[in-house]
Amino acid sequence: MSELKGREKTSSGFYVTKEAPIVTDNPVPTPSVPAPDILRCAYMELVVTDLAKSREFYVDVLGLTVTEEDENTIYLRSLEEFIHHNLVLRKGDVAAVAAFSYRVRSPEELDKAVAFYTELGCRVERRTEGFTKGIGDSVRVEDPLGFPYEFFYDVEHVERLAWRYDLYTPGALVRLDHFNQITPDVPRAVKFMQDLGFRVTEDIQDEEGTVYAAWMRRKPTVHDTAMTGGDGPRMHHVAFSTHEKHNILAICDKLGALRMSDRIERGPGRHGVSNAFYLYILDPDGHRVEIYTQDYYTGDPDNPVVTWDVHDNQRRDWWGNPVVPSWYTNGSLVLDLDGNPREVVAGTDASEMAVTIGADGFSYTRDEEGDKGFKLGNTL
Amino acid sequence: MSELKGREKTSSGFYVTKEAPIVTDNPVPTPSVPAPDILRCAYMELVVTDLAKSREFYVDVLGLTVTEEDENTIYLRSLEEFIHHNLVLRKGDVAAVAAFSYRVRSPEELDKAVAFYTELGCRVERRTEGFTKGIGDSVRVEDPLGFPYEFFYDVEHVERLAWRYDLYTPGALVRLDHFNQITPDVPRAVKFMQDLGFRVTEDIQDEEGTVYAAWMRRKPTVHDTAMTGGDGPRMHHVAFSTHEKHNILAICDKLGALRMSDRIERGPGRHGVSNAFYLYILDPDGHRVEIYTQDYYTGDPDNPVVTWDVHDNQRRDWWGNPVVPSWYTNGSLVLDLDGNPREVVAGTDASEMAVTIGADGFSYTRDEEGDKGFKLGNTL
Amino acid sequence: MSELKGREKTSSGFYVTKEAPIVTDNPVPTPSVPAPDILRCAYMELVVTDLAKSREFYVDVLGLTVTEEDENTIYLRSLEEFIHHNLVLRKGDVAAVAAFSYRVRSPEELDKAVAFYTELGCRVERRTEGFTKGIGDSVRVEDPLGFPYEFFYDVEHVERLAWRYDLYTPGALVRLDHFNQITPDVPRAVKFMQDLGFRVTEDIQDEEGTVYAAWMRRKPTVHDTAMTGGDGPRMHHVAFSTHEKHNILAICDKLGALRMSDRIERGPGRHGVSNAFYLYILDPDGHRVEIYTQDYYTGDPDNPVVTWDVHDNQRRDWWGNPVVPSWYTNGSLVLDLDGNPREVVAGTDASEMAVTIGADGFSYTRDEEGDKGFKLGNTL
Amino acid sequence: MSELKGREKTSSGFYVTKEAPIVTDNPVPTPSVPAPDILRCAYMELVVTDLAKSREFYVDVLGLTVTEEDENTIYLRSLEEFIHHNLVLRKGDVAAVAAFSYRVRSPEELDKAVAFYTELGCRVERRTEGFTKGIGDSVRVEDPLGFPYEFFYDVEHVERLAWRYDLYTPGALVRLDHFNQITPDVPRAVKFMQDLGFRVTEDIQDEEGTVYAAWMRRKPTVHDTAMTGGDGPRMHHVAFSTHEKHNILAICDKLGALRMSDRIERGPGRHGVSNAFYLYILDPDGHRVEIYTQDYYTGDPDNPVVTWDVHDNQRRDWWGNPVVPSWYTNGSLVLDLDGNPREVVAGTDASEMAVTIGADGFSYTRDEEGDKGFKLGNTL
Repeated sequence: MSELKGREKTSSGFYVTKEAPIVTDNPVPTPSVPAPDILRCAYMELVVTDLAKSREFYVDVLGLTVTEEDENTIYLRSLEEFIHHNLVLRKGDVAAVAAFSYRVRSPEELDKAVAFYTELGCRVERRTEGFTKGIGDSVRVEDPLGFPYEFFYDVEHVERLAWRYDLYTPGALVRLDHFNQITPDVPRAVKFMQDLGFRVTEDIQDEEGTVYAAWMRRKPTVHDTAMTGGDGPRMHHVAFSTHEKHNILAICDKLGALRMSDRIERGPGRHGVSNAFYLYILDPDGHRVEIYTQDYYTGDPDNPVVTWDVHDNQRRDWWGNPVVPSWYTNGSLVLDLDGNPREVVAGTDASEMAVTIGADGFSYTRDEEGDKGFKLGNTL
Repeated sequence: MSELKGREKTSSGFYVTKEAPIVTDNPVPTPSVPAPDILRCAYMELVVTDLAKSREFYVDVLGLTVTEEDENTIYLRSLEEFIHHNLVLRKGDVAAVAAFSYRVRSPEELDKAVAFYTELGCRVERRTEGFTKGIGDSVRVEDPLGFPYEFFYDVEHVERLAWRYDLYTPGALVRLDHFNQITPDVPRAVKFMQDLGFRVTEDIQDEEGTVYAAWMRRKPTVHDTAMTGGDGPRMHHVAFSTHEKHNILAICDKLGALRMSDRIERGPGRHGVSNAFYLYILDPDGHRVEIYTQDYYTGDPDNPVVTWDVHDNQRRDWWGNPVVPSWYTNGSLVLDLDGNPREVVAGTDASEMAVTIGADGFSYTRDEEGDKGFKLGNTL
Repeated sequence: MSELKGREKTSSGFYVTKEAPIVTDNPVPTPSVPAPDILRCAYMELVVTDLAKSREFYVDVLGLTVTEEDENTIYLRSLEEFIHHNLVLRKGDVAAVAAFSYRVRSPEELDKAVAFYTELGCRVERRTEGFTKGIGDSVRVEDPLGFPYEFFYDVEHVERLAWRYDLYTPGALVRLDHFNQITPDVPRAVKFMQDLGFRVTEDIQDEEGTVYAAWMRRKPTVHDTAMTGGDGPRMHHVAFSTHEKHNILAICDKLGALRMSDRIERGPGRHGVSNAFYLYILDPDGHRVEIYTQDYYTGDPDNPVVTWDVHDNQRRDWWGNPVVPSWYTNGSLVLDLDGNPREVVAGTDASEMAVTIGADGFSYTRDEEGDKGFKLGNTL
Repeated sequence: MSELKGREKTSSGFYVTKEAPIVTDNPVPTPSVPAPDILRCAYMELVVTDLAKSREFYVDVLGLTVTEEDENTIYLRSLEEFIHHNLVLRKGDVAAVAAFSYRVRSPEELDKAVAFYTELGCRVERRTEGFTKGIGDSVRVEDPLGFPYEFFYDVEHVERLAWRYDLYTPGALVRLDHFNQITPDVPRAVKFMQDLGFRVTEDIQDEEGTVYAAWMRRKPTVHDTAMTGGDGPRMHHVAFSTHEKHNILAICDKLGALRMSDRIERGPGRHGVSNAFYLYILDPDGHRVEIYTQDYYTGDPDNPVVTWDVHDNQRRDWWGNPVVPSWYTNGSLVLDLDGNPREVVAGTDASEMAVTIGADGFSYTRDEEGDKGFKLGNTL
């Protein structure tokens, strides 16, 4: 619970504080041992049901680089990456996420990860030879929020293709930027992530203090992962960066030319949260991929935390364009360490969709006296 | 009436013919005298109800250059223009369009305009001193479709500011590109415009030959004006060009920063028709302005005419994003030569909105066997 | 001879007049018959000495589309083109230009072309079946300036690939924009081209009235061809358009990645003349290709003519970056109708390079009292 | 001393290693106490001789935001910054740099800075109230290389204007990116900076192991500062970031429109080193400012170190465009803590300019057998 009142409201319409005032009445205990020192989100392992179709989507359409592949698995990376992969596509029966994988600062951090999650009573599995090709000693856990998290340091270096402009497409993806997770209790999830060493950069709240979503980072961008309120644990999306906005438009243009425009779920647009330019598309299994560019530096410890009012119609799209309902409701299953889908628990808090879209929802363009640019939630 | 069948379908999903096969069973008679030789759409005269608010919108937000102004009128131009104005804002009681003005090739063409419209029985008014500042000898008519059209050659030259990059904003408007008119009977309107010397570049039809909209040009771009089916005569929009797509995104970003995002009606996006990048915004009176960039050269007499199937969901937005209903239904009144609003006549043909949005409408992403990317019209 | 004095100087530093005041004391006679009505520059036929290498350059590096090819000839087009080709590469012993080809408004214009050049005593050859594949009835001439010009109307339509974004590269070329010719006597050449129906849009002069170069158009862009002073007849360059400036930067980046950066001769930069963004690169035979984007509309008959002072250091590059000497001195041979290279005649007027580069040259950044941003010509 | 031989050469033409193999035979001693934990380069204090002229350059032309100003000093920030300033302009008699200022992770790091430099025998001055407005407790030192370095944590937060697109210009500067310092002995400087906690990301060497320049980072970009070989201590440049490449082109266009193109010293272009897009301009005192965008993430501890051969003509400009001699030779004086200019010591190693430009220099485009795209250094 928290309050927007009493905070400093900026000329851009959101609120800033020095520390994210998110509190939970249902916390995961804080371990007595230190958290592993996480560098950044590094790769996602996706289970896909038709490997050829997924390869077409990620390689032929989106242009990711194949580091290595076999009949069951494809290892992909972005153009500026020097580690073995940023995305693993693995053939399976049920479309799902097998791992949210983070790189840590040194091999020793893996011991810390084991201790940290063991103290929390989580299932922990360590494999010296790694869970995927190209990566060595790794720890996978079922975290307290139900997500399959991985940590590793040891990784095969491959060529950073940043200068290989002969390989660039008009919509070239240059970096893995972040993950986004769906969880029923956002404040609980945020508190746990803070214990894991993450720092909140932005969030969405209402006057009653309900927290609808929060963005958290290790590397100094707006996020390495975000927690979105809803039925979970599920994966909301995985995001890759382009250099410029026209690269994202080029992906839309290409999807149109391929008569795949129905894979565009939302956007392109400018986020309020993060100030980045974005697009959401759906892979053949419905896994959501964000294409993202140009958020801001957040690396100072006192980086101002931005809080958006859930009724501010520019929070999710700075241009006020509507969020489609599927974007709020759909997500990918996540797997436990045995490869079985985790049960999904219904969200308990008010839903952002319900308070902003439909008969009970509303948003404003201007939070001022007089004409607020009021929008009935069902006016799209 | 016409048919999509039997035409050449391109790999992009539309049809091409050498001549626009649009026919009307209710034609305006073709005059026996030649039409005036029109160069291009040159300016629109808009009546606005609050001149200060309109000035803020067109000058402070959109960055048009004030050539001249007085207490009742503001004369605006784009950065690459060398004639006195591309837009006139005139204070009045009822928001409306007072003139769609075209430049002709020489002073002598005005005599032809007089003869052309006189033979059609239209009201014609000629003023040697012009109807607006900066422009000399001019002819205004109430055309057979009910629109106030103007023709002129004589005009004051002003400085072309194309090189004055110190005056550019991030969303700089560099040219007037086109008008768009709403008329109840598109084939009738197209036939008349062809008599006036326009050439169709693209249109939207269905299997039964209903023509929902058509684009027509004098200068070698996709259009100087378009005819959109609906209750008319009304003005659908006036369009200005930017150099690049990011300029259009910058306008959206600025509207967000000014908390005016509710002035964004549709877009930004990529048109199917014209292949241009677009944005539709609404001025303080609800006059619709398009920001537009990067259509293609159409100046050859055998330029292929592009026909889109009305059910092709990429025709209006190449990325398949939905067209909001207001974009189909709203428009600005037009004035007669006495300054009174013209009566609006209801459209008689099937409405594009009805056949593509709502319970009776549908669209497809792929016009192929199997999964067509079917979209119920009410699924936004 | 002409004078800068007495003209209107704009705030951008150049001069404008309503008509290009270029006069020649050595005119080609004006024919008594009308000139053919030219639509636009349509294609160039280039003789190349290593067809495979040239194919690699134009297709693999620049991304032009192959319409058709055989062992001796490759027919290429840009993405927005609907006629058979914009560039023909023909294998031959001597690198040269075989034709500057223009499309005319109708088949009948070919008769006019024959009469026009015949009256001038030029060699004229007409082939009903065309000189290249894809094109029908054509007229080729050795024009009074020594250039091989072609005129045609009849042409095979091919698919306009403008919407095929799946085929676009980051540096996609979308249109043929213009030719540029080197001739020893620019005023004589301009006068002849005006008789052929071209209109001057911009030129470079000095206080004594020497004309160093002039730009002339049929379609309403800054030019379909330009006349550059120097030893001629030779071809200076052929230019293709991109949509945006980043597309041109992408070509540079790709040339770097391919370790072909030594093919970049000049740029990228912003032209003063034309206000376009540009890059000059050299094909394997040294034929110069310009990549060009974003000049302005010139279609009004009273379009203001822009005259640049030859000593204005921003005339050729708005950012003041130096023009490399090779750009002034090098050019491609042109062929007569028998396929033999035309003899090159030395320029007689002062050379733009001599007056702006080297010990005798100078330029200014600001033509004002005080600090002019003086540049010794040899200061690069 | 080091060797290119034996390293892994990438397909892009440079070499990679896991650790920068730069060694010095003249090291600054490594302190026994820990270095302060530096977050990032934060601001530069520049002494300028005409405050009004400098304000015009940095505020009116470049669009930096004035946080605060008085008759002697102007405090400027970029659009994404939340600390008080990124640049201080202070009026003085001699143009120079008064401080390279870095932010540290916490207030306690200042004690470490004092101890670190004190052990090195450097002059150290600490002011609780700060050396500039908006900043509290600060330490300034005369470092072992002769540069005035500052460290601070305490700083006034101001509004981050990232979302205020109404304030953006076409060339908007969004972040301070890095400094660049000139020093006579690059290996010695690098070794010292490594002791201070910096990590090398790229460098330029030759076969004999001469190190011509090195780039070093704290935040995970290519650099917070670089060491360039030459007469020093001097400041080579200070760099601000834009979002996209077109923003940098817009600055060039604007300088042209203002007839200030002679302030453009070098570029725009694509760097080989850093892969960033760049422009170098000169302020009214000749202080060099770089405008920079789109380098890559370097935050992993094993980030591959890139070494460029000094004879690779694409190292400084990926497009092979020449580096002007002034860029190698000119720099700004730096001040000691009394405000007096530091004496400049001549560089001892081979000069990069000498080995690449002029009669004794050469470069290659392709380091392969056969045609290397050889460039005589004096061929510009």
